[in-house]
Amino acid sequence: MSLTEKNAVVSRLLASHGEEIAAHEHLTPQDMARGLDAGRMVLLANPAHKNVSPTLIGQPARVKVNANIGTSPMINDVAMELKKLRLAEQAGAHTVMDLSTAGDLDQVRLRILEASPLPLGTVPLYSVAQPYVAKGQDPSDFTAEELFEEIEKEAEQGVDFMTLHCGVTARAAAMASDGRRILGIVSRGGALLARWMKRRNAENPLLEHYGRLLKICLKHNVTISLGDGLRPGAGADAGDAAQWEEVSVLGDLARQALDHGVQTMIEGPGHVPLHLVQAQIQGIKRLTNNAPLYVLGPLTTDAAAGYDHIAGAIGGAQAAYHGADFLCYLTPAEHVTLPGPEDVWDGVKASLIAAQSAETALGRPWAVERDLAISRARAALDWEAMADNALDPHTLRKRRKDFHKEKECAMCGAFCAIRMLEGAEHGVCDKG
Amino acid sequence: MSLTEKNAVVSRLLASHGEEIAAHEHLTPQDMARGLDAGRMVLLANPAHKNVSPTLIGQPARVKVNANIGTSPMINDVAMELKKLRLAEQAGAHTVMDLSTAGDLDQVRLRILEASPLPLGTVPLYSVAQPYVAKGQDPSDFTAEELFEEIEKEAEQGVDFMTLHCGVTARAAAMASDGRRILGIVSRGGALLARWMKRRNAENPLLEHYGRLLKICLKHNVTISLGDGLRPGAGADAGDAAQWEEVSVLGDLARQALDHGVQTMIEGPGHVPLHLVQAQIQGIKRLTNNAPLYVLGPLTTDAAAGYDHIAGAIGGAQAAYHGADFLCYLTPAEHVTLPGPEDVWDGVKASLIAAQSAETALGRPWAVERDLAISRARAALDWEAMADNALDPHTLRKRRKDFHKEKECAMCGAFCAIRMLEGAEHGVCDKG
Repeated sequence: MSLTEKNAVVSRLLASHGEEIAAHEHLTPQDMARGLDAGRMVLLANPAHKNVSPTLIGQPARVKVNANIGTSPMINDVAMELKKLRLAEQAGAHTVMDLSTAGDLDQVRLRILEASPLPLGTVPLYSVAQPYVAKGQDPSDFTAEELFEEIEKEAEQGVDFMTLHCGVTARAAAMASDGRRILGIVSRGGALLARWMKRRNAENPLLEHYGRLLKICLKHNVTISLGDGLRPGAGADAGDAAQWEEVSVLGDLARQALDHGVQTMIEGPGHVPLHLVQAQIQGIKRLTNNAPLYVLGPLTTDAAAGYDHIAGAIGGAQAAYHGADFLCYLTPAEHVTLPGPEDVWDGVKASLIAAQSAETALGRPWAVERDLAISRARAALDWEAMADNALDPHTLRKRRKDFHKEKECAMCGAFCAIRMLEGAEHGVCDKG
Repeated sequence: MSLTEKNAVVSRLLASHGEEIAAHEHLTPQDMARGLDAGRMVLLANPAHKNVSPTLIGQPARVKVNANIGTSPMINDVAMELKKLRLAEQAGAHTVMDLSTAGDLDQVRLRILEASPLPLGTVPLYSVAQPYVAKGQDPSDFTAEELFEEIEKEAEQGVDFMTLHCGVTARAAAMASDGRRILGIVSRGGALLARWMKRRNAENPLLEHYGRLLKICLKHNVTISLGDGLRPGAGADAGDAAQWEEVSVLGDLARQALDHGVQTMIEGPGHVPLHLVQAQIQGIKRLTNNAPLYVLGPLTTDAAAGYDHIAGAIGGAQAAYHGADFLCYLTPAEHVTLPGPEDVWDGVKASLIAAQSAETALGRPWAVERDLAISRARAALDWEAMADNALDPHTLRKRRKDFHKEKECAMCGAFCAIRMLEGAEHGVCDKG
């Protein structure tokens, strides 16, 4: 039996929305079903998430962009998170992750689920550790049972995908912590699990009880986003043995999940110098049987703090061009503070620019057509058509508005190259 | 005789500052002299520009970043341009171009030259056309004689490099205007010359009198930035016959200049889809005998108006990685309006991120060391060292300051991955 036969939710979704989803992605329903059965695509949608927009991830479907929101111990304001959610939607994010680590986490999560049709992702490890942190205890005091109860609860609430760092084995965590790395373990979930294992001299509970996890996820069609707990946190750490050890485990886990009808994605780096992005993407894809790859950046330099959305767009464009399917945004706040509303907007736009750049290069019709439409509008100095086709119509209109009476932009004015050739045959230039 | 023998200014500069410049670039003075003699490098410095910092361009010297400033017919404020100049310097630009097209152009230029040691570039075509535009005449009413007088005057004033679109032949301009392009000619200087030629049924005066140009430039060591008047203005136009026709002419002109002891750079695109950036850079380098390549972006999508500094950073990183030597910034205002002070800052930073990404990938020691220093500072949660080594210490410190009492950043707080593993052996976590 194939995944689309084993997974009742996916099966029903294909029957009810298959044509529509495939058409939006410029695919045939057959292409989509084959991609899902091969584990090359996933369809995010937990039926308990009311009004969720089922979202297909896996090229040649459109590259998708995720926005992370959520409270932190120092900045904890639910209204602010809902504002960020709205901005992420308006900016064009395809999914959202709630990474809250402070306040009433169930309330935040339920309000986000209620407020948005975008597939929602979470990191249940944060939620299970948070009460211990709040009580002044060790964050790794939670039990394996509590972790699975949290996962099950969130699945019932309607979470569509969960980052679960199942591949952080005791062996791999030790490899990442032996002093050879510049920046050890930088994933919060990965570090938390490594701490949990070290204190108990035990193996990763998500790995030890992987079968239990698969059952929960199959029931609710929760897509497992196999977390890269050992992703490089410095360019110098990219591609080391610890990273590949984890990727190799993730490849096995993705195959097991597929056999059980459970959808999985693979999370990827992180910090990767430009010349290694292609090798990273192709290497991870190979080891994970071409499962959808969900990358964080990658950042092509460590030195861009305050502008990591730009460093992430450089790496993200390369990554998507070489096969990454899903870009997690980075905001200007990355490595410094919790993103504010403007950061969310800028982060989504930067990732969309990366995706558009990659998809134009790959010849995807929707991307090529968009670029062409803007260029044609430029040739006609048609500002409305430029805005309509821009990745951010709002910002373009806002910046343009002070000079909207002029046909040319305020950079060139009478020196507009487009107008310079008008009437040149007759020596007539209406700019005088 | 070699260039460093024929060009008296360069020869004197090498004797007086050669050791210092070479050391800054991690080169030997011999490497530098060989690069200059081969035309693979240029040393920007017009002796009439008081206190100019002689600036070497051509990899493996450091990749340089240029910031464009200047008035426009709709926004014309000298004080604002001087403010933008200061911000460009503070942000880390290596050169500045004054692209003013309105007001007292001599005054603006002289004040910039006086105010800044950064090599200054101009486009004399704008200055020679501007009085005609101001008087309500056709912008192409200027004579060839007036154009050369303008070039000579600016050389005497101290301009260090000039964009001169010598390769816009009547034949090439016709190829770019025959309707096959989406966006014809988008370079202001290129369009102006095409108009000039078409109205007179004449050849490009900069090409016809190239010998006269070389004499002026040799005398003052003005580096000719051979303008790409026919650069693609749409991704769909990248790499067409008109573009290569001009590049081929530029290659010949660069060789002629070198024979006369005159330094030249080649200007490059523009709008180039991601998958064509490598071919563009390598193709241009090959046809121009590896002359220093000065690119505008390239923009990897046309759809990022309002964020073209990001689309330009994606293409700029790729371009510099494949051999481009000099990045002209793009700002968030590109394609919309004249950049304001914040745009200048953001544009320089985006280009520096692209350069840093490329140079880290190329293994340049200064770039690799910077990334390493930040990563080590992150491992130590040493915020001062992070800021000291960041491409924008100011922004990092500003965003961090609200939470400066906490060792962790406000994104993770007690969930800091770095701290998560502290004391894990003993089950002690100071975050409680």
